[in-house]
Amino acid sequence: MLLLIPGPVSTAPEVRAAMAQDIAPWDVDFRPLYASVRADVLALAGVGADTHAALPLQGCGHFAVEAAIRSLVPARHGRILIPLTGSYGARMVRLAREVGRQVVELPLSTTQPLDPAQIAAALAEDAAITHVGLVYSETSSGVIHDAAAIAEVARAAGRRVILDAVSAFGALPLDLSLLPAVDAAVFTSNKCLEGMPGLSFTIARRDTLEGLAPAGSWSFDLGDVHRHTSGHGAGSFRFTPPAQVLAALRVALDLHAAEGGSPARLARYTANATTLYDGMLAIGLQPYLPRAAQGPIVLNVSAPDDPAWFLQPFVEALKARGYLISNFHDTPSPSFRVGCIGQVRPADMRGFCAAVDAALTEIGVRSRAPLRRAA
Amino acid sequence: MLLLIPGPVSTAPEVRAAMAQDIAPWDVDFRPLYASVRADVLALAGVGADTHAALPLQGCGHFAVEAAIRSLVPARHGRILIPLTGSYGARMVRLAREVGRQVVELPLSTTQPLDPAQIAAALAEDAAITHVGLVYSETSSGVIHDAAAIAEVARAAGRRVILDAVSAFGALPLDLSLLPAVDAAVFTSNKCLEGMPGLSFTIARRDTLEGLAPAGSWSFDLGDVHRHTSGHGAGSFRFTPPAQVLAALRVALDLHAAEGGSPARLARYTANATTLYDGMLAIGLQPYLPRAAQGPIVLNVSAPDDPAWFLQPFVEALKARGYLISNFHDTPSPSFRVGCIGQVRPADMRGFCAAVDAALTEIGVRSRAPLRRAA
Repeated sequence: MLLLIPGPVSTAPEVRAAMAQDIAPWDVDFRPLYASVRADVLALAGVGADTHAALPLQGCGHFAVEAAIRSLVPARHGRILIPLTGSYGARMVRLAREVGRQVVELPLSTTQPLDPAQIAAALAEDAAITHVGLVYSETSSGVIHDAAAIAEVARAAGRRVILDAVSAFGALPLDLSLLPAVDAAVFTSNKCLEGMPGLSFTIARRDTLEGLAPAGSWSFDLGDVHRHTSGHGAGSFRFTPPAQVLAALRVALDLHAAEGGSPARLARYTANATTLYDGMLAIGLQPYLPRAAQGPIVLNVSAPDDPAWFLQPFVEALKARGYLISNFHDTPSPSFRVGCIGQVRPADMRGFCAAVDAALTEIGVRSRAPLRRAA
Repeated sequence: MLLLIPGPVSTAPEVRAAMAQDIAPWDVDFRPLYASVRADVLALAGVGADTHAALPLQGCGHFAVEAAIRSLVPARHGRILIPLTGSYGARMVRLAREVGRQVVELPLSTTQPLDPAQIAAALAEDAAITHVGLVYSETSSGVIHDAAAIAEVARAAGRRVILDAVSAFGALPLDLSLLPAVDAAVFTSNKCLEGMPGLSFTIARRDTLEGLAPAGSWSFDLGDVHRHTSGHGAGSFRFTPPAQVLAALRVALDLHAAEGGSPARLARYTANATTLYDGMLAIGLQPYLPRAAQGPIVLNVSAPDDPAWFLQPFVEALKARGYLISNFHDTPSPSFRVGCIGQVRPADMRGFCAAVDAALTEIGVRSRAPLRRAA
């Protein structure tokens, strides 16, 4: 079964195999693996341990986004501007609000990349904004935002940036050495790094991490994680980690390097998305985004305007053919979504397009014109 | 290599094997597995879905303890009494304090089970205390506290209980149907359930979960987890779960049932601990606790009073013989600690005792009398 959900992704057999072992996470023999993973993800972000720290956290990407917000945006005078890029932008808003931080929402199109000038204008308008919270790759729409340009706008305006790079890291360009306004970039093991789910990371500036106020949560206090990883506990986690997930990520990082790093992975994902985009058009379906706005991570396809269309039977018909897609849609009008990441190649996408064609026929869909109505 | 750390534990091969697969955690095919795990852990706690809910959370036991405290102890008027049973009692104090809850610490011996009368006296003395936070099995000392008796004392005094059952659940007795004062019992996948690390659970009373105030953390809001698991999202997680860990836990729960459930597991762990206790005495070493206070989960052994004693070389000498123990000690005077849980049997413990004997000789320890000094 090929997973074409936008994470957890299809992994390589050797990544999965690394999960099937007992591990003592505090033992000295495990520490070099842990240290090497931390060093490697720093390098993937274009930085070293002199300026930045790679801070692991048990759990999912949402946990790390909350941890970054509550650790880095001051409780009293912090104020974070969050562009409403889609579901994940909205989730960042909720995470920040429930932590008690002031949030300024920036409404925008969810079918086009954010114009950095919009951020500049919003920052100029509200001098109290201290941070910008940006979703680099918005999974709900498939749109990629120009993180570097937006970080530069924030820098020019004297503000800090928290970057949700969950579905971007390991494929989309990210060189934090060129983005001094980015205090934190957050990602997980199970998206473009092609590891297993259960572990997240925040890459944060060391100068920002020094002297942080308590985060109001020991579990999510990145300052405390930093003190732990910098000091006596440098070789280990504060609390029991999902050590098998870390071991699998070690293998996944080796495969990432062997493939040619993030540029090679981006090229493969882009080829996947292009093959999929063309393939959907070829069988009469309409991708949700205009081609120019379509990113390489996830592609939504408008549901066909046919009374026989139901998502779950379609998902099952695809599953019978060896492809597993999401069984919900996350766009304003009905769609199905397909992940382009993981151990997937253009040939897989061609096979998938043929399977979509057959599955639609099987469930009795005749018209493939896009259904455009509010969900 | 046999892991004799008190979690993550040595698992069965079929548990490890379940980790090595790609899983789409929101797919309908995965939902029955998830539902069955939630139902089974409720049953292990002696309750059903009519009165209680099994609330999963990504991450480690500390995360779930924080989630229970911030969700269930009211921010304004809540006040939690926490017996200082050892390191894990102290950690619960820190988790509660950093969340901003009022904490009353109850100092006590860390080498004897807590006398429930002490709790009764502390509750009588401070009418503002709303909750008791108890570590059922204190991993740092190896002492088991009488959770049922303490919960009864709390009930009689009209207070609520949050039970850290992390290193207890699945072996030590727990029947929440008889303990109406327990609002939440917290545990993880990787201790006595003999699963893999990465997932925690809170079993909470449904009546307590209704109408909770926001927890000040979307990630850790058990009321929100409950709404999600009770409603539209009943079959899935809010955020990406460590699905492989859940799949492994499914296998581990089957093995738990096949062994004869928690009573059989407790009997095996008790036999392990007794064999180990006797074996240490037989080779001239002194367990840290008096026999009457020694629990079946973890056993500390006083370090030998010999200038050749160093923990790490000892750990390495044991590792060369196929046994892996913790490489730190968590008792006031130096010790080494040995987990009695996981896929371990008395015969393994006999082999381990012989390995300890040989390892001490190898590192040049001659005197085995206990070293008793402050660490």
